Amino acid sequence: MRVAIYGYGNLGRGVELAVRENKDMELFGVFSRRDPAAVKTLTGAAVYPAADVIKYKDQIDVVVICGGSAKDLPEMTPMLAGYFNVVDSFDTHARIPEHFENVDRAAAKNGHTAIISGGWDPGMFSLMRAYASAVLPGSTSYTFWGRGVSQGHSDAIRRIPGVLDARQYTVPVEEALDKVRSGVCPQLTTRQKHTRECYIVAEEGADKAAIKKSIVTMPNYFEDYDTTVNFISMDELKANHSKLPHGGVVISTGRTGLDKEHTQTVEYKLTLDSNPEFTSGVLTALARAAFRLNAKGQTGCKTVFDISISDMSGLSSEELRKMI
Amino acid sequence: MRVAIYGYGNLGRGVELAVRENKDMELFGVFSRRDPAAVKTLTGAAVYPAADVIKYKDQIDVVVICGGSAKDLPEMTPMLAGYFNVVDSFDTHARIPEHFENVDRAAAKNGHTAIISGGWDPGMFSLMRAYASAVLPGSTSYTFWGRGVSQGHSDAIRRIPGVLDARQYTVPVEEALDKVRSGVCPQLTTRQKHTRECYIVAEEGADKAAIKKSIVTMPNYFEDYDTTVNFISMDELKANHSKLPHGGVVISTGRTGLDKEHTQTVEYKLTLDSNPEFTSGVLTALARAAFRLNAKGQTGCKTVFDISISDMSGLSSEELRKMI
Repeated sequence: MRVAIYGYGNLGRGVELAVRENKDMELFGVFSRRDPAAVKTLTGAAVYPAADVIKYKDQIDVVVICGGSAKDLPEMTPMLAGYFNVVDSFDTHARIPEHFENVDRAAAKNGHTAIISGGWDPGMFSLMRAYASAVLPGSTSYTFWGRGVSQGHSDAIRRIPGVLDARQYTVPVEEALDKVRSGVCPQLTTRQKHTRECYIVAEEGADKAAIKKSIVTMPNYFEDYDTTVNFISMDELKANHSKLPHGGVVISTGRTGLDKEHTQTVEYKLTLDSNPEFTSGVLTALARAAFRLNAKGQTGCKTVFDISISDMSGLSSEELRKMI
Repeated sequence: MRVAIYGYGNLGRGVELAVRENKDMELFGVFSRRDPAAVKTLTGAAVYPAADVIKYKDQIDVVVICGGSAKDLPEMTPMLAGYFNVVDSFDTHARIPEHFENVDRAAAKNGHTAIISGGWDPGMFSLMRAYASAVLPGSTSYTFWGRGVSQGHSDAIRRIPGVLDARQYTVPVEEALDKVRSGVCPQLTTRQKHTRECYIVAEEGADKAAIKKSIVTMPNYFEDYDTTVNFISMDELKANHSKLPHGGVVISTGRTGLDKEHTQTVEYKLTLDSNPEFTSGVLTALARAAFRLNAKGQTGCKTVFDISISDMSGLSSEELRKMI
């Protein structure tokens, strides 16, 4: 199976490493919008100009599209689905139906298979919410994120004047977690579920009080949360906040029994030293699934809900059956 | 979708309750080897003699077989797969390949779909082990069971002379859980992973020391574990140990990164007030999948690895997509 990577940021690098771990895959190369001569890959993978991708359509089985959800994927995925089997990590929940339709049209028309919204949320967490609802009809699933770095929130802080660099951690509130785990199905506000911790490197002489105010009052990003702001040195940021850990948990509780007297709790928890590398692991397994579904004639747009583990796994049926 | 239950113990009762929660299903009735007149169902479901089941083959879409793995299912599932789409919870891990072959032959020959080994382990836990291995190739999964009642171990104690009743709890060792969660991939012996707690009601005048010795030295069941034995009154047993709670956790750890410098941990944990009712929830969702796969012409024997959530879920594609 020849896999190509389209877009070479943290996610693209993660897919490059993941392909190396999957013995049935071969990395065709990386497509980048930057000058290929200026892109140095981690494992020495070949780099091609993104604009040339269609030239290679007969040499590639699946393209893993590693772009951003805001601007890149809504254009890239439908375009590439016209020429390749593709996988993406589109994560703007509200726009998934629209993205699905666009990708489905392009993929179906050209006999390709596309799997959108892979990763862990959406992705593995979506699966867990759906399993809980299938096995425990009427159950409630709660999703908490963190403790981990939110790149979107870190970027938002970096755009504030006077900020040199920043890291934002999303942190679930322990009290809320405990309440949900107890099975009581609480109503929780945004503020009750998560707090936000910011580590900021400010320019010399910057107005720290103004920066802090800009952060904690920022609509959508921080306004609805209890946010703490810590000013640190660039050395400290590099020493203690250079990684991209993340994680989270889906907790589902349902009730069964003649009089609904039994509480059943399901918890799926991720603790990730590297958020992009785990996401890449999911995308790479889904690349295999896209290839296999296409070989079976199952074309058009799919999500994780349509994929069985037999299609995702690199193990043989016999090896897999040993895990039962 | 007309569902029938074959075998009416704790599991069969659980399926009866689960079908009630799935609006696209209708319970045809219960088949029992006991005298139907003597079987009182929880929700008033009709009871038929097990021997008559084949007479109703055109009125039933799926049979959920609720028998024991030791003696019942190896005969029942292949036999019934000749006449119906079926689901079972066969859990004797070592014999799954043989059971699979027998069921596959009967189901394929007659154009039916069978899903074996549903439930939580095997079942949901199998899925989690397989997802971890697909997403994190080379990762290691550890499975811990409990704290919960093991019916097999409780039965083994009840067969000891002088024992009136007994309940055995399997308990994971916290220290082992912590070690696994830390990502070090320890080698753990049977004794290091779980302990066993027994609550025994002895006959008046019974030799308690002899009973205790029979338990803690029992091969396979207790010999390899640290076992505690508590003698209690029948009233105490009924008051404090009449339920069937269970649960457990699959913890998978893998390493990613150019130099495998990142630890990635996935944890799937079940905390169940009622073990049979959760198992039944999984079997009932798989009954839907068996029916749907059959309608698509996918016949023969399947396992959870072959099933997508779209096939298991009672939600529409649109409702499901909201969970992404």
